[in-house]
Amino acid sequence: MIKTDILIIGAGPTGLFAVFEAGLLQLKCHLIDALPQPGGQLAEIYPKKPIYDIPGFPEVLAGELVDNLMEQIRPFQPGFTLGERAETLEKMDDGTFVVTTSEGTRHQAPIVAIAGGLGSFEPRKPLLDNLEDYEDKGVAYMIRDPESYRGKRVLIAGGGDSALDWSIYLAEIASELILVHRRNEFRGALDSVEKVQDLKDRGKIRLLTPAEVVALEGEGALERVVVRKMTEPAEDIRVELDAFIPLFGLSPKLGPISSWGLEIEKNAIRVDNTLDYQTNIPGIYAIGDVNTYPGKLKLILCGFHEATLMCQSAYQRIHPGKKYVMKYTTVGGIHGFDGSKKEAPKAVVKTIE
Amino acid sequence: MIKTDILIIGAGPTGLFAVFEAGLLQLKCHLIDALPQPGGQLAEIYPKKPIYDIPGFPEVLAGELVDNLMEQIRPFQPGFTLGERAETLEKMDDGTFVVTTSEGTRHQAPIVAIAGGLGSFEPRKPLLDNLEDYEDKGVAYMIRDPESYRGKRVLIAGGGDSALDWSIYLAEIASELILVHRRNEFRGALDSVEKVQDLKDRGKIRLLTPAEVVALEGEGALERVVVRKMTEPAEDIRVELDAFIPLFGLSPKLGPISSWGLEIEKNAIRVDNTLDYQTNIPGIYAIGDVNTYPGKLKLILCGFHEATLMCQSAYQRIHPGKKYVMKYTTVGGIHGFDGSKKEAPKAVVKTIE
Ligand SMILES: Cc1cc2nc3c(=O)[nH]c(=O)nc-3n(C[C@H](O)[C@H](O)[C@H](O)COP(=O)(O)OP(=O)(O)OC[C@H]3O[C@@H](n4cnc5c(N)ncnc54)[C@H](O)[C@@H]3O)c2cc1C
Ligand SMILES: Cc1cc2nc3c(=O)[nH]c(=O)nc-3n(C[C@H](O)[C@H](O)[C@H](O)COP(=O)(O)OP(=O)(O)OC[C@H]3O[C@@H](n4cnc5c(N)ncnc54)[C@H](O)[C@@H]3O)c2cc1C
Repeated sequence: MIKTDILIIGAGPTGLFAVFEAGLLQLKCHLIDALPQPGGQLAEIYPKKPIYDIPGFPEVLAGELVDNLMEQIRPFQPGFTLGERAETLEKMDDGTFVVTTSEGTRHQAPIVAIAGGLGSFEPRKPLLDNLEDYEDKGVAYMIRDPESYRGKRVLIAGGGDSALDWSIYLAEIASELILVHRRNEFRGALDSVEKVQDLKDRGKIRLLTPAEVVALEGEGALERVVVRKMTEPAEDIRVELDAFIPLFGLSPKLGPISSWGLEIEKNAIRVDNTLDYQTNIPGIYAIGDVNTYPGKLKLILCGFHEATLMCQSAYQRIHPGKKYVMKYTTVGGIHGFDGSKKEAPKAVVKTIE
Repeated sequence: MIKTDILIIGAGPTGLFAVFEAGLLQLKCHLIDALPQPGGQLAEIYPKKPIYDIPGFPEVLAGELVDNLMEQIRPFQPGFTLGERAETLEKMDDGTFVVTTSEGTRHQAPIVAIAGGLGSFEPRKPLLDNLEDYEDKGVAYMIRDPESYRGKRVLIAGGGDSALDWSIYLAEIASELILVHRRNEFRGALDSVEKVQDLKDRGKIRLLTPAEVVALEGEGALERVVVRKMTEPAEDIRVELDAFIPLFGLSPKLGPISSWGLEIEKNAIRVDNTLDYQTNIPGIYAIGDVNTYPGKLKLILCGFHEATLMCQSAYQRIHPGKKYVMKYTTVGGIHGFDGSKKEAPKAVVKTIE
């Protein structure tokens, strides 16, 4: 059982920044995310795109913002359960909550902060009969650990940014990289398309287009797939491989959270915006894109504010009656749980002679 | 008469960021500030100190944050009335507001956003009989335009950061720079104290300590001051000069705003935090440190959120009934009033052969 002060569901920008604000209050956090990496929509949908409305950044790449947030929260040593979906929530007799993931990992905390954005990112799967039989036995929809593909024969299907970028990345690692797409045209950053063209020209990527995986074969684990080339007449090719990775995009689904007894409105969780972004269940908060209230804007900077106010309220729940005196970070500095310390240089009092 | 869409009182971080959010909605802003430079507390009190809790910045100097915000709002060409205090507010028959400053400058807008922080920064003045007679005639409490001191004989009084930093700066510009302080010890950044020591050693700054200006003299304008050296016995020195700049710190005072008929609570303006940070006077909003509501935190990041929601509401007041569809900056880009354009690089659709 993983225990913490604030259990955060969703490691998007809102959940990440909540770790920082909690840390200032000496509260520890643990985050759960269905994605294999932190950053939410920014990391999954548009890591290389610029954002212009983060205050103080005339321009920042989404991926950079995530990196910065990870760096900012580092002193507060958050725990992560990545690549698992928060599935069930139970309220214990002592008032704490236990959240269990799709993989059965259990987490306990007196406070739950749902920062689930538009929901848990779930892969769009190809329509193949026996697909589920091979899940985690050769078939994967997200790349959790690129190193696990070293020296392996990998087939990626898809025609967008993910398919392009992972093909480029894994071409250097895999012993064989095949890219299959239903059309000849790919859609992505010019740079990525050109790199794939180059890798193909140099024999590092084998390209099968227009084509489609139509069958999976293997005893117990995936051993080969059938790729249908959409020529006239169509031609079926059997490809021996270790991994089949269909990258057809991830789409967010509120999913399990919607059955936790929370007040749901417009596919979001209704919160009390007059005070602390708490839900109808005391001790459970919802911050960032996942919540709704009159005038709500689904913007990153709003999630930051909501996370900050929420942490103050969580502090009061954990330490009832304890008076907290806010100190500016400039004045009080940052005292990491890892013993690290950041402080403004002190003024000196010094005679000039 | 200066006319604009949103008249912002206070050019601290909150007021500055409001310009950006208004700009996204194609609304123009004009800012009034009593200080000669934008940035509010950050620029006036702690420009060289690090802030650790701006989301996405593990550390940023207050002055840098102000520079970044100025850069971020540049495309939206805000107007500035600096070095003037907003004094009176009148409601016109057409529903617009007219705000007049201490210098008589008049501004008209359908929306007023008060982002006045802890109040208008007012100088702490030395207790000298005829001080007021020489104001703007040799006596100044803030440095509006350093260049106006070129070739002049300047006396600065004070022992803190401002006195040190302006002495360093003006030593290169003025024909003579005298620094007077009641003690031998100065209080400031080590670096600044050392620089003043060095300039003194090199004869660029004349230091009079422990000492105090006790009288001002001159016909119509300031011509000389009497400096009393606190030796035993005390010694009075007459110093001929063009400018006497006492830098004893600025302290914020809500001042005139408190008589505008707004609901004041704990020296701040009460707003409706359930929706849009509007005050009890429709069309007047209060954002940032200057407002109060249950759970209010006087933090920079909260001001950013408040400014954002406030602009949405202002848009509705200015364009009643017009449906505004929010576009992410990443998707819609930034279209400056100066014709500038920032846009994310577009994805391409391209054949790989
Ligand atoms: C193309 C695009 C451009 C954008 N541009 C801008 C912009 O310019 N400015 C701006 O402010 N905003 C922009 N946004 C919106 C911005 O990305 C969101 O406001 C932001 O990501 C919300 O952050 P969050 O942390 O609340 O949620 P998210 O980023 O959505 O993160 C939520 C995380 O929670 C996880 N999760 C949810 N449920 C579960 C569960 N049950 N178990 C485990 N994990 C779960 C999800 O997997 C996800 O990783 C843009 C969005 C897109 C798609
Ligand atoms: C030493 C110190 C350290 C701090 N550290 C942090 C930190 O680490 N993190 C954090 O989030 N916050 C910190 N703060 C607080 C932060 O500076 C404020 O929250 C922030 O400045 C508020 O911004 P604002 O724009 O609302 O108001 P301000 O920055 O106060 O700006 C208001 C402006 O309005 C002007 N004004 C007011 N009334 C009038 C008028 N009638 N006419 C003309 N002009 C007027 C003032 O002159 C001023 O320039 C710190 C503050 C101090 C003093």
